[in-house]
Amino acid sequence: MGSLSSLNSICIDRGRFPKCLDEIKNSKVKKLCLRASVATSAPKSLQFEEFKAQKFEKFRIGVLGASGYTGSEIIRLLANHPNFQITLMTADRKAGQSIGSVFPHLVKQDLPDMIAVKDADFSNVDAVFCCLPHGTTQEIIKGLPSSLKIVDLSADFRLRDVGEYEEWYGQPHSAQELQKEAVYGLTEISRTEIQSARLVANPGCYPTSIQLPLIPLMKANLIEVKNIIVDSKSGVSGGRGAKEANLYTEIAEGIHSYGVTRHRHVPEIEQGLSEAAKSKVTVSFTPHLMPMSRGMQSTIYVEMAPGASTEDLYQHLRNFYEKEEFVVLLKKNEIPHTRHVRGSNYCLMNVFPDRIPGRAIIISVIDNLVKGASGQALQNLNLMMGIPENTGLLSIPLFP
Amino acid sequence: MGSLSSLNSICIDRGRFPKCLDEIKNSKVKKLCLRASVATSAPKSLQFEEFKAQKFEKFRIGVLGASGYTGSEIIRLLANHPNFQITLMTADRKAGQSIGSVFPHLVKQDLPDMIAVKDADFSNVDAVFCCLPHGTTQEIIKGLPSSLKIVDLSADFRLRDVGEYEEWYGQPHSAQELQKEAVYGLTEISRTEIQSARLVANPGCYPTSIQLPLIPLMKANLIEVKNIIVDSKSGVSGGRGAKEANLYTEIAEGIHSYGVTRHRHVPEIEQGLSEAAKSKVTVSFTPHLMPMSRGMQSTIYVEMAPGASTEDLYQHLRNFYEKEEFVVLLKKNEIPHTRHVRGSNYCLMNVFPDRIPGRAIIISVIDNLVKGASGQALQNLNLMMGIPENTGLLSIPLFP
Amino acid sequence: MGSLSSLNSICIDRGRFPKCLDEIKNSKVKKLCLRASVATSAPKSLQFEEFKAQKFEKFRIGVLGASGYTGSEIIRLLANHPNFQITLMTADRKAGQSIGSVFPHLVKQDLPDMIAVKDADFSNVDAVFCCLPHGTTQEIIKGLPSSLKIVDLSADFRLRDVGEYEEWYGQPHSAQELQKEAVYGLTEISRTEIQSARLVANPGCYPTSIQLPLIPLMKANLIEVKNIIVDSKSGVSGGRGAKEANLYTEIAEGIHSYGVTRHRHVPEIEQGLSEAAKSKVTVSFTPHLMPMSRGMQSTIYVEMAPGASTEDLYQHLRNFYEKEEFVVLLKKNEIPHTRHVRGSNYCLMNVFPDRIPGRAIIISVIDNLVKGASGQALQNLNLMMGIPENTGLLSIPLFP
Amino acid sequence: MGSLSSLNSICIDRGRFPKCLDEIKNSKVKKLCLRASVATSAPKSLQFEEFKAQKFEKFRIGVLGASGYTGSEIIRLLANHPNFQITLMTADRKAGQSIGSVFPHLVKQDLPDMIAVKDADFSNVDAVFCCLPHGTTQEIIKGLPSSLKIVDLSADFRLRDVGEYEEWYGQPHSAQELQKEAVYGLTEISRTEIQSARLVANPGCYPTSIQLPLIPLMKANLIEVKNIIVDSKSGVSGGRGAKEANLYTEIAEGIHSYGVTRHRHVPEIEQGLSEAAKSKVTVSFTPHLMPMSRGMQSTIYVEMAPGASTEDLYQHLRNFYEKEEFVVLLKKNEIPHTRHVRGSNYCLMNVFPDRIPGRAIIISVIDNLVKGASGQALQNLNLMMGIPENTGLLSIPLFP
Repeated sequence: MGSLSSLNSICIDRGRFPKCLDEIKNSKVKKLCLRASVATSAPKSLQFEEFKAQKFEKFRIGVLGASGYTGSEIIRLLANHPNFQITLMTADRKAGQSIGSVFPHLVKQDLPDMIAVKDADFSNVDAVFCCLPHGTTQEIIKGLPSSLKIVDLSADFRLRDVGEYEEWYGQPHSAQELQKEAVYGLTEISRTEIQSARLVANPGCYPTSIQLPLIPLMKANLIEVKNIIVDSKSGVSGGRGAKEANLYTEIAEGIHSYGVTRHRHVPEIEQGLSEAAKSKVTVSFTPHLMPMSRGMQSTIYVEMAPGASTEDLYQHLRNFYEKEEFVVLLKKNEIPHTRHVRGSNYCLMNVFPDRIPGRAIIISVIDNLVKGASGQALQNLNLMMGIPENTGLLSIPLFP
Repeated sequence: MGSLSSLNSICIDRGRFPKCLDEIKNSKVKKLCLRASVATSAPKSLQFEEFKAQKFEKFRIGVLGASGYTGSEIIRLLANHPNFQITLMTADRKAGQSIGSVFPHLVKQDLPDMIAVKDADFSNVDAVFCCLPHGTTQEIIKGLPSSLKIVDLSADFRLRDVGEYEEWYGQPHSAQELQKEAVYGLTEISRTEIQSARLVANPGCYPTSIQLPLIPLMKANLIEVKNIIVDSKSGVSGGRGAKEANLYTEIAEGIHSYGVTRHRHVPEIEQGLSEAAKSKVTVSFTPHLMPMSRGMQSTIYVEMAPGASTEDLYQHLRNFYEKEEFVVLLKKNEIPHTRHVRGSNYCLMNVFPDRIPGRAIIISVIDNLVKGASGQALQNLNLMMGIPENTGLLSIPLFP
Repeated sequence: MGSLSSLNSICIDRGRFPKCLDEIKNSKVKKLCLRASVATSAPKSLQFEEFKAQKFEKFRIGVLGASGYTGSEIIRLLANHPNFQITLMTADRKAGQSIGSVFPHLVKQDLPDMIAVKDADFSNVDAVFCCLPHGTTQEIIKGLPSSLKIVDLSADFRLRDVGEYEEWYGQPHSAQELQKEAVYGLTEISRTEIQSARLVANPGCYPTSIQLPLIPLMKANLIEVKNIIVDSKSGVSGGRGAKEANLYTEIAEGIHSYGVTRHRHVPEIEQGLSEAAKSKVTVSFTPHLMPMSRGMQSTIYVEMAPGASTEDLYQHLRNFYEKEEFVVLLKKNEIPHTRHVRGSNYCLMNVFPDRIPGRAIIISVIDNLVKGASGQALQNLNLMMGIPENTGLLSIPLFP
Repeated sequence: MGSLSSLNSICIDRGRFPKCLDEIKNSKVKKLCLRASVATSAPKSLQFEEFKAQKFEKFRIGVLGASGYTGSEIIRLLANHPNFQITLMTADRKAGQSIGSVFPHLVKQDLPDMIAVKDADFSNVDAVFCCLPHGTTQEIIKGLPSSLKIVDLSADFRLRDVGEYEEWYGQPHSAQELQKEAVYGLTEISRTEIQSARLVANPGCYPTSIQLPLIPLMKANLIEVKNIIVDSKSGVSGGRGAKEANLYTEIAEGIHSYGVTRHRHVPEIEQGLSEAAKSKVTVSFTPHLMPMSRGMQSTIYVEMAPGASTEDLYQHLRNFYEKEEFVVLLKKNEIPHTRHVRGSNYCLMNVFPDRIPGRAIIISVIDNLVKGASGQALQNLNLMMGIPENTGLLSIPLFP
């Protein structure tokens, strides 16, 4: 590099640069001029390169419910995001605290203190991740300015049928108008709708791991709608709430099923599969809790359509996901491990023949906090803001 | 037992009492007079009660392959067994070593050093547990004196069809005559045959967890022979061999399937179910390895027979196992956890309705090293030697 | 069994039988006639030997605070105890529940339901284990009948100096008279006093692991009272309370110190060491919490007395603990592992030379719930009731 | 951003851009023109931004010994490095295999297959990370072209005194000339020497965690050279070799010391401290192995210099590390947890008062594979190549 002027012709980092303006379709965000400038003055300490972008040059992001695991994961993923900057964090029970006191692994992050959601000023925010518990979410989102882009990580807007919401969650839906607007954010399946959405209902972790392999197969009529048996295994980072059942002593060195046939992700799974199949699908879904903080595997037992083979299923998934960055069909016979996606936004999957003729076994693994929650949420917001969807999501799985 | 005076020469404790002489059917063992005598001289240290039974008064037990986990588990279970005494231990690669140097948790056990199997003198042994790898076992058992009672924990005598053995294990069966004599030792199912057996093939861990719930249901025609889907999860104490795949770093904080459709326990499972169903059963069986040292869960998805309900399945299992000590059908809706059987010989199970009409979900849990291996082996040998089958097996699960 | 005299000629099981009547020194327990009778009628099911002792023939035991981990561990240890029978269990927040619903691993135990402590009738109880939180314990023990033997597992009676109690626990001692009577129950050190005690203050887990090696060395003037540095590592079964800090996700795959210099076990450790040294000892004590449910290691760095060598320390400990069943000095160079005492009442220890001349390293390991709590409590109550102190404590460590 | 031309004025990403040429001191690297160009043609898939830099524009990196954990960690860290590109990977036993087959979590990385080191062509490589076992490393490094920059992660060049190497490693040093040239790479302590080094001996994990806090204190004469007691706790990712001792079953749910007083990191620790103290330092060092894949804590017990207080120690460390990115002194009383640095290059530390007057407790935590190995190695190579030392090292710790 001859001189600094040669810098002028270069760009930048993989997946870290906004699309050109003319690709930014959404007029709401046009006003956000994305600029960054070279540090020109000699820094005090030369050893660390500083990023001198001024704050207004990035999209300003709010994180509602920042004291839970999905909240802290959003913060982790945004720490090196070139276009997003967190300017607002709420956590009612931790109001007034710094992020470092609540999540010491984030102690080096320069972020605003947490405040109560009722004290939040949304006028200086371009988009929010909503990481609040289901039930309370609807009211809060209803109260947000309509100019905000929202990715909601709760279950509150995932079910199109508000009656079904009421049935499974035991309370009426209090934002039924918003529900109509909400787009279900399974990124690889609904990319186009997500790009133009204002409110995205981010999928649950189990539904993500199950629908990513099944929806393409269902749409292609390669599997039957009946006798779909899903045995899922999850880590325990679903929440940071202090529950006896989640104590180390109650989780380590063992496994157990829970919510057998009654887990609240059932209607979400069936909604997605039914839509893909264009007929009502009822699944057998049994989740298991096991000693790992992150990770999720769904072992899915399906009946193939008459004439279809596991080779057909494999080839169809291969074609479907060939150009995707985050959904990876492994080579034949390779078995996905949850350890191999830890901390990353990948979904690894594969298809296996079953001993029972006419059946196949599909295995998919994700990190429940990344592709199963905050990573997919960021993937969605990237799309909604018109920037490359892999921005901030390129870190490699952490193994071992 | 005719009178109290006969008490004087016998021994006592809960579950630790030999049947009366006239109940000891097997003439081979009659010569072993079970006596125990009170310590009459003042012990040096009064604080610990000493058991002063002379050695010849107990059955003399050999453990072949004592340096693996199933071997050490046999030793643990026999440590306080009132009727069995280990007098021979072999471990070819550890020959000459004490048990405490190979398994420091057994450092306080007063046991003979390990020797090579070729150096073993079986003339002073009444029974052996054979904990050797499959393949080598057949030759060794063929060479044992015919007066010995044998419980073989390997897979070498489990498959009645030696052709199937050859197919799944990739080598010819080298003890086909013995195979005809071997009794498959699923205790609660084949108790009578085991009592009079000389050679018992101890079931595999997965097959135990699967057959205990399914065989009674199959025999009663309450479930279909088709579409049986078994998703099993196991701890990693299957072996102590130094394999990269079993390193802490490769197992902790994750899960993965292995041997999909090709695990060697498949023919054993199908043999048992087919016999119960009186027709050929093909199962879908997918084992998973997860971060726990001990424990195994099988989540079993079955199609019920026309007209049968989960209530029927529940009631049938309840009746079938009502008087059993080690197989426990939980109360309705209670979910078995592997943690709750750790270190014990229990199998906990339950039946749940499935969302898919006509199907049911059955969950069973065991400790793979106890009911799935050494515990059931001891249960079998107790039976074979004519003593109460729960002797030495009464310890409570270790939780947390 | 016609008369007690017939008892004299029979035996019984290792460590499972009360000493002869004439050895029962404590008159309070004489009235409890220890008898057991053979089942005379044919049992319905012959396969499991039943223990037909009538209830009044065993000591009747109460467990106060049965819903915590030390409570459930008492229940586990008593399950096969030949002389103790639980007849009362209290747990205020679980009153009315069965033990199986609170601790499913105990589902097969035939025990009374839990009741509130205020509803307990102590007239039918011979002894109690008190597993209540510190602070509340003093009042409750004050209210118990004076005929009861009590082993208190809380910290409420461990500190002889009630001023020190107040300083470290932040509240006045409300049973100062009882404090004078309480015997500190480090069994191997204070066996004689414990045998005749009515109220035993059971030692804390850290103090047990630290004092067992240090007190004999201190008494023999083999180590200096200064510069004793104790670095302890503990499992997380200290409590079942639902705390964020003890969640699986907050404990797995990591370690951290806690309570640096301020842990409440400090005064207890210093009390014991000071008494042994006959001069005030101040220790450096840093506990660490790590991902294991059970287990505790203390790595202790000491300065040896002038002229003393690690060989002297080793030989002294060897002589001191030679006849003990539960305290085991390993062979030279062998390193104690916590895994090798899991579930057992053992304390393994060893002495190592330090690189710094004049210093030595002492390592001791226990199971914090057994020798560090409920096991030692049972060892103490056995002594107090005049039965062999190892009764019910003979199970072998569970490994792996 | 008005137009693409405005792009010309921007830079880049935090810590991801090389310093200007005039800062690139090392002439050897000048020839590597660092350029990157904007993707101008419309990509097939618009959704993922592609980095179109041509290969020759990055430094070409070799990884020797890529099939171990430190090797795979180098690959992980370089995956998104803007200036380094792996062009050569060796692994003798895995020669011919792809990285995805050896490390499935790297399956998406586009990298050359592994080859045997004897087949490597170093003429197209600018720098190497050497992740080979000690002992073999010296010969291999001796054979490398002298133009190569080398960071050696083995112990082979860490000890300046080759006699000491021979004593602790049991073999003569076979590259004594190179040893004289090697710079010990504790980055924050020896930054200047590292910048101009050709061969850097990357520190061991324990020595890093111990020297980072102690060297500044030693240099400032705030702590005594005597009675330094170090109790370290490590995860088990020290190697991927298949050893019984590192099996899941042998590591989970327990802790043990190992290599008491004889661990090979001792001379390295004492070398660094002695140099800082300008007098011979002998430390007491006891490492412990515990159930975590990554992470390391050193709890260090020191005697303060006469007149010094923990406040003095705290303030000195604060000043010393104030401007560092990776070494973080926590706020007073905050306790470092290993979980809070997992996957990151951070070292968190703090100072605590001891109960023993005149002593202090220092706690430091690192990820043994990052700051303790591959992360510090990258930090060093960044410096050696004249680019910001935090490049590629900005990812946030992964918690939970």
